[in-house]
Amino acid sequence: MPISFERMQKDLEILSSFTDPEKPYTRRSFSPLYEKARQWLWKAMKEAGLSPRLDEAANLIGVREGAEAGLPPLIMGSHIDTVEGGGRFDGTAGVVTALEVARSLFEDGHVLRHPLWVVDFLAEEPSPYGPSTVGSRAMAGRLRKEDLERRNEEGETLREAIARMGGKPQQLGEPLLPPGAIAAYLELHIEQGPLLERAGVPLGIVTGIVGIDRYRLEVRGEQGHAGTVPMKERKDSLLALAEVLLEVEAFARRKAEEVPFVATMGWVKVHPNHENVIPGRVEAVLEMRSLAHEALEEGERALRTILERVEERRGVTLRGERTDRLPPTLSDPRLMDLLKEAAEKRGLSFLELPSGAGHDAMHMAALGPMAMVFIPCRGGKSHVAEEWADVRHMALGARVLRDVLLRLDHEDRRSGPAGP
Amino acid sequence: MPISFERMQKDLEILSSFTDPEKPYTRRSFSPLYEKARQWLWKAMKEAGLSPRLDEAANLIGVREGAEAGLPPLIMGSHIDTVEGGGRFDGTAGVVTALEVARSLFEDGHVLRHPLWVVDFLAEEPSPYGPSTVGSRAMAGRLRKEDLERRNEEGETLREAIARMGGKPQQLGEPLLPPGAIAAYLELHIEQGPLLERAGVPLGIVTGIVGIDRYRLEVRGEQGHAGTVPMKERKDSLLALAEVLLEVEAFARRKAEEVPFVATMGWVKVHPNHENVIPGRVEAVLEMRSLAHEALEEGERALRTILERVEERRGVTLRGERTDRLPPTLSDPRLMDLLKEAAEKRGLSFLELPSGAGHDAMHMAALGPMAMVFIPCRGGKSHVAEEWADVRHMALGARVLRDVLLRLDHEDRRSGPAGP
Repeated sequence: MPISFERMQKDLEILSSFTDPEKPYTRRSFSPLYEKARQWLWKAMKEAGLSPRLDEAANLIGVREGAEAGLPPLIMGSHIDTVEGGGRFDGTAGVVTALEVARSLFEDGHVLRHPLWVVDFLAEEPSPYGPSTVGSRAMAGRLRKEDLERRNEEGETLREAIARMGGKPQQLGEPLLPPGAIAAYLELHIEQGPLLERAGVPLGIVTGIVGIDRYRLEVRGEQGHAGTVPMKERKDSLLALAEVLLEVEAFARRKAEEVPFVATMGWVKVHPNHENVIPGRVEAVLEMRSLAHEALEEGERALRTILERVEERRGVTLRGERTDRLPPTLSDPRLMDLLKEAAEKRGLSFLELPSGAGHDAMHMAALGPMAMVFIPCRGGKSHVAEEWADVRHMALGARVLRDVLLRLDHEDRRSGPAGP
Repeated sequence: MPISFERMQKDLEILSSFTDPEKPYTRRSFSPLYEKARQWLWKAMKEAGLSPRLDEAANLIGVREGAEAGLPPLIMGSHIDTVEGGGRFDGTAGVVTALEVARSLFEDGHVLRHPLWVVDFLAEEPSPYGPSTVGSRAMAGRLRKEDLERRNEEGETLREAIARMGGKPQQLGEPLLPPGAIAAYLELHIEQGPLLERAGVPLGIVTGIVGIDRYRLEVRGEQGHAGTVPMKERKDSLLALAEVLLEVEAFARRKAEEVPFVATMGWVKVHPNHENVIPGRVEAVLEMRSLAHEALEEGERALRTILERVEERRGVTLRGERTDRLPPTLSDPRLMDLLKEAAEKRGLSFLELPSGAGHDAMHMAALGPMAMVFIPCRGGKSHVAEEWADVRHMALGARVLRDVLLRLDHEDRRSGPAGP
């Protein structure tokens, strides 16, 4: 059986239906909807000839054993959780594609020499507990003990939530697979940016994933009655945050003229957040992303300077703690070459481009060779309800991924430990 | 029995104990804690010789009938709800003072000619449903039908909440008392500002209450992935709000050099508020307060100009709707004179000063003559846990209020409808 556009379309539609009807398309990690979607996926994996299981991090893994014992797995994967009000393709497209590749091999009766894994990684998007890429981080041994103790708004810890999802958080810490225990990791994802669509090409070969520095900011000013404290005696923490935000933006705009660089404040919490109370405290999360390590370092220095300046000007206390540093990750050159060859053989044009978004692939790169394929998405939009990609592009991507899997499975015969 | 400092102290301590233990001192209107505190107050009113009842707006009113039929009531009151993380004195000091005045008259066996009312107004602080001064607004016929349909975060309407508190929201609309049906309204309150403490005087005679214009702002930008949309292509609604906030602050600082004027953004809600999503929409509430009507008009014009400018600069949509306009309210000159005379006779120094905060007295002024007495509060701080006032100042205020009540009760003999 060839890769089937219609089957992929149907899988996507089914997964899209697991959404909060009030906020399409919302399927937050750890939610009841997410569990239902995973139950469906569990069944779909079985129908594709895969044996589903949950690993210690509650990653859902569909395994098809290989013909030869002792070979490392070939892995494809992505995630099916969404941000609030996100879309139908981010993550889900990669899972559906991986599933379709496995299914087409199964229906062909084609047994690989290596084990084949299709992975739905747990909680790739920022979870209600804080951390993102929870499952892949844990698989790579990068989920820290303190991450496990972080709580959602209801007070549940991430540790408890992973156990609730079927994981074994007490066994997390070391990588779940030893480095090198993976033959290859391949992931298809929507670009989430405008470049492929603008260039009119169906595929992108990802050169690397930007580094992400994440800062937790806290401004402590002076809470007071909104009617009785004169303007010039105020220490309004929200005004201080507004200045920080605009100054960081100015830095990011300048920097972006030299290298790919963005800075975003996406989360803000005002205390006490009453209309007639001067905000006494504000918390916020600020992100900086770049492919260039030096640009991120410069960003940190700029942020420190801005915080000091605003602190002095406004008489407030400003803290900025870096809570996360994901260094830029480069794709495996050999896998990139194989992807390019496969695309060329099929007469498909492609761009080489970096990923501005983080992916589970970042962590999988710590365990073995990693590469990613992008497909265009309309208007470059992602994390919004109208996020849209063409399933025909997904099918093209699936064919290229299958070509590369077969090539890897074949090539390794000559060098693999179980070879003749 | 004289006014008792110790009794007032005890009442305050008891009321302070009805607090969310995690966030002292929090007793939000309509909460279970609030209901418990009102149950205590109901009992305390009875012990002070008052007959408690709830009016249609669920204001808790303790009534002592007067000796002569047909006379309008003399009313003292305030409120016992707090903002989140507020203090022990805002509102509560006025209720405790009114209670003590009534109690001392009762224990003296002194029956006034007029009915005496002690009122705990429902929900003076901004309620979880939006509106503030809910009870006094309703008493003055100023609570609009659409206010009753506003909902808290759980989806309950204010109408339902008032009914839950024992009111009859279907009977709200017209004033609950006809204008002129009040002999006088007197309220003691902490200043919530620094002037009395700085001047070292125990009492303030309030000249008027500032007008409040409240605006609901909404910025609609473009939600997107925080990693993939280049800085210069973003329409970040939070950045736009930050500019609006800082420009409004600059206007308010300039204006405040001419007349008392403040502007505050105390409430902000970011959508979707995820750390890796560019905020697509932000809501906020902006307040402007002034004793000068013209300054508020100027503030509105300045805000419109700022919104247009930022809208154009950032390519976002900015809406600013005035949801509330409370005009400045002046105190009754005769009541102010009686308060000053009473203070002078007792050898107490005082300041005449405006109130920067809104009070239930604003609405009561629509029903009859109104005046207020302020007492100092430490550091001018209010709406914070460390809010503090001296109960001895409350006792001085109680004596002055009682003097004026007795004087009014006596004087009206000569002119009242039931006079000889």
